[in-house]
Amino acid sequence: MSLDEDKLKKFGFIERGPKDAINIDPLQTGGILTEDARKALLEWGDGYSICDFCGGVLDLIKKPPVYEFVHEALPEFIGTDEVRLTHGARESKFAVMNSMGKPGDTVVLDGLAHYSSHVAAQRADLEIEKVESSGHPEYNLDPEGYAQTIEKVANKSGKPPALALLTYPDGNYGNLADAKKVADVCHEYDVPLLLNCAYSVGRMPIDAKKIGADFIAASGHKSMASSGPIGLLGVQEEYADTVFRKSPTHKKKEIELLGCTSRGAGLMTMIASFPQVVERTKHWDEEVANARWFSEKVEELGLIQVGQKPHNHDLMFFETPPFYEISKTAKKGRYFLYRELKKRNIHGIKGGLTKYFKLSTYQVGRDNLSYVIDSFEEIIDKYAEE
Amino acid sequence: MSLDEDKLKKFGFIERGPKDAINIDPLQTGGILTEDARKALLEWGDGYSICDFCGGVLDLIKKPPVYEFVHEALPEFIGTDEVRLTHGARESKFAVMNSMGKPGDTVVLDGLAHYSSHVAAQRADLEIEKVESSGHPEYNLDPEGYAQTIEKVANKSGKPPALALLTYPDGNYGNLADAKKVADVCHEYDVPLLLNCAYSVGRMPIDAKKIGADFIAASGHKSMASSGPIGLLGVQEEYADTVFRKSPTHKKKEIELLGCTSRGAGLMTMIASFPQVVERTKHWDEEVANARWFSEKVEELGLIQVGQKPHNHDLMFFETPPFYEISKTAKKGRYFLYRELKKRNIHGIKGGLTKYFKLSTYQVGRDNLSYVIDSFEEIIDKYAEE
Ligand SMILES: Cc1ncc(COP(=O)(O)O)c(C=O)c1O
Ligand SMILES: Cc1ncc(COP(=O)(O)O)c(C=O)c1O
Repeated sequence: MSLDEDKLKKFGFIERGPKDAINIDPLQTGGILTEDARKALLEWGDGYSICDFCGGVLDLIKKPPVYEFVHEALPEFIGTDEVRLTHGARESKFAVMNSMGKPGDTVVLDGLAHYSSHVAAQRADLEIEKVESSGHPEYNLDPEGYAQTIEKVANKSGKPPALALLTYPDGNYGNLADAKKVADVCHEYDVPLLLNCAYSVGRMPIDAKKIGADFIAASGHKSMASSGPIGLLGVQEEYADTVFRKSPTHKKKEIELLGCTSRGAGLMTMIASFPQVVERTKHWDEEVANARWFSEKVEELGLIQVGQKPHNHDLMFFETPPFYEISKTAKKGRYFLYRELKKRNIHGIKGGLTKYFKLSTYQVGRDNLSYVIDSFEEIIDKYAEE
Repeated sequence: MSLDEDKLKKFGFIERGPKDAINIDPLQTGGILTEDARKALLEWGDGYSICDFCGGVLDLIKKPPVYEFVHEALPEFIGTDEVRLTHGARESKFAVMNSMGKPGDTVVLDGLAHYSSHVAAQRADLEIEKVESSGHPEYNLDPEGYAQTIEKVANKSGKPPALALLTYPDGNYGNLADAKKVADVCHEYDVPLLLNCAYSVGRMPIDAKKIGADFIAASGHKSMASSGPIGLLGVQEEYADTVFRKSPTHKKKEIELLGCTSRGAGLMTMIASFPQVVERTKHWDEEVANARWFSEKVEELGLIQVGQKPHNHDLMFFETPPFYEISKTAKKGRYFLYRELKKRNIHGIKGGLTKYFKLSTYQVGRDNLSYVIDSFEEIIDKYAEE
């Protein structure tokens, strides 16, 4: 390809189709921008706009109040002594693993861990040992599994794992394990615990101190109404000097952050949304109630929610035999569901999935959720008649 | 601090003061968004919006044309066999260093290297050996310096450096070393060369193949009219499998990218600006002419441009004795200049600097540059009269 004008015409501004749909995509329900964030995005969109105010360390900027945000508000919000901005949950996890482990060390992951936890460990040259869940249908994690796995690692390699990780909740079933017990078990073996809160910080109240977590990874674009890539890394005092060690040659710069991370509009959208994000976490019980209600309603249609039940999170996984049956004979095959939902302006169930899918009810509200339930029913009825 | 309403009021939407000023901040002149990018930012601002179209590998998305952009247009644009998106130039450099070096290996950096090159090496646990420049006033880099430094490393550690890096141009003086010769020298010793093009890709024509560079690091928010953090990593075939190695457990995911990187609006702004970015690199000779003309004009006022002369880049470093003289007696001390420029709606010279500063003439245009020159003169005259 040579860069002639015809080829270049494919680029430029491109519209985003589904932007005004009812969105039940688990990746997206917590990341939709607030009005303030949308304004901030335009205001601060130019490259390095935030750097106008920087004296060498981004998170020390006083005006706009980045310092207060990162060093006062966020630590309070998630319950860690220190917080830094990162590009996302995976980058936070990598930063911890790269700091805490040496090549060849082991990290213990829960069996439901997101792929990015595996890949982060691989990037840091760490071995992985898993704590398996109970499997279908609840996929529960027994905190005692961490004890067994830690002992296994110690026996095998002669030293304890450098780190344990728990996905809270996991990204498939939306299960919330007993994180406090997991932390207690890990600490009995002096193994620090990283809590992957990609799906929790910004949605529900999280207090790392209460749980006993040593590290928190959070995701701005997933759960804090921020324009990505942006995330948080929370670290308790004990490990702050390790993870946030400074460069010997450039004394102000933190090595693990490569000096600075979120040097763009994303940070200003996170700050813009923050008051509303704090507020919404106070209404988490309503979100859980909505999720449970939704789950009950669609189970009446023949769908089956797997994972913890009653459920404690907006992210849910459903087995969907009625849709699978339809897909066997429907004209559009397994894409029928995607098309039917699209027609009804409902977005977020991966095209082609009919045997099972996950979805999120977060911030969708009862009215729209009712509409989704009715649409499911309508689609099932429509094909039953055919 | 507890997160009460009063404290939260500090956050939310915050205005950006200097957003409509004439901007000569080297960090910013190449990162100002195009109109298309501004539209794209709003359209794709929500967290993970691009992931609607993802089958597991972000850069393989066909619609919008991410695949064509990343795998066809960008390789053509910078002259590398492979390109991937990253969060910025520093993240690209770290990815190369983390892949190419083992802890304890050495990387050779030019003496003008940006701090982030040092910090990236430190994060990857690599030793650093520098090729010093000729120093004041031209700060030239002799390509033969790379031979001497490579030999020094080999003698000292028993093995050649894992990588050499050249900052092209450097971020202080805007000097463009003879990159082709540096590449030739490095290759004589079988040492691969990473070219840090944070200040070149997106501003001026860059062809890694012609130069002989094995890796290119580029910065979207600095030089490609993109909303950051976003950058490019270009890699020639020989090293692509090393840098872009796949996860053994998650076969589609590239370890060094943690699966994916720029999962947000930044990518869509880069695509939006790309046609105009390609176009502007074709007018690089005009930009160089403007820089030289500006340099001549302000030298007539007593400023002294250091670094290569005549200059070959819009980023320039000036010693500024007339301003320094004024600062000794001016009421506002060394902040007088910042205030005088602010009054005149000129933005981008760091507050408090009067002995020397850097600035960029990129895309500012002759009219605005004239206005800046006149303003400098006016300010000097004004204080001469006092
Ligand atoms: C459980 C879980 N953790 C982490 C991530 C990655 O989040 P980020 O994009 O912030 O790295 C995801 C993304 O889907 C996830 O589901
Ligand atoms: C020469 C040089 N390289 C790299 C960088 C960092 O670029 P990025 O923000 O894309 O990591 C800078 C930033 O000022 C720079 O001046």
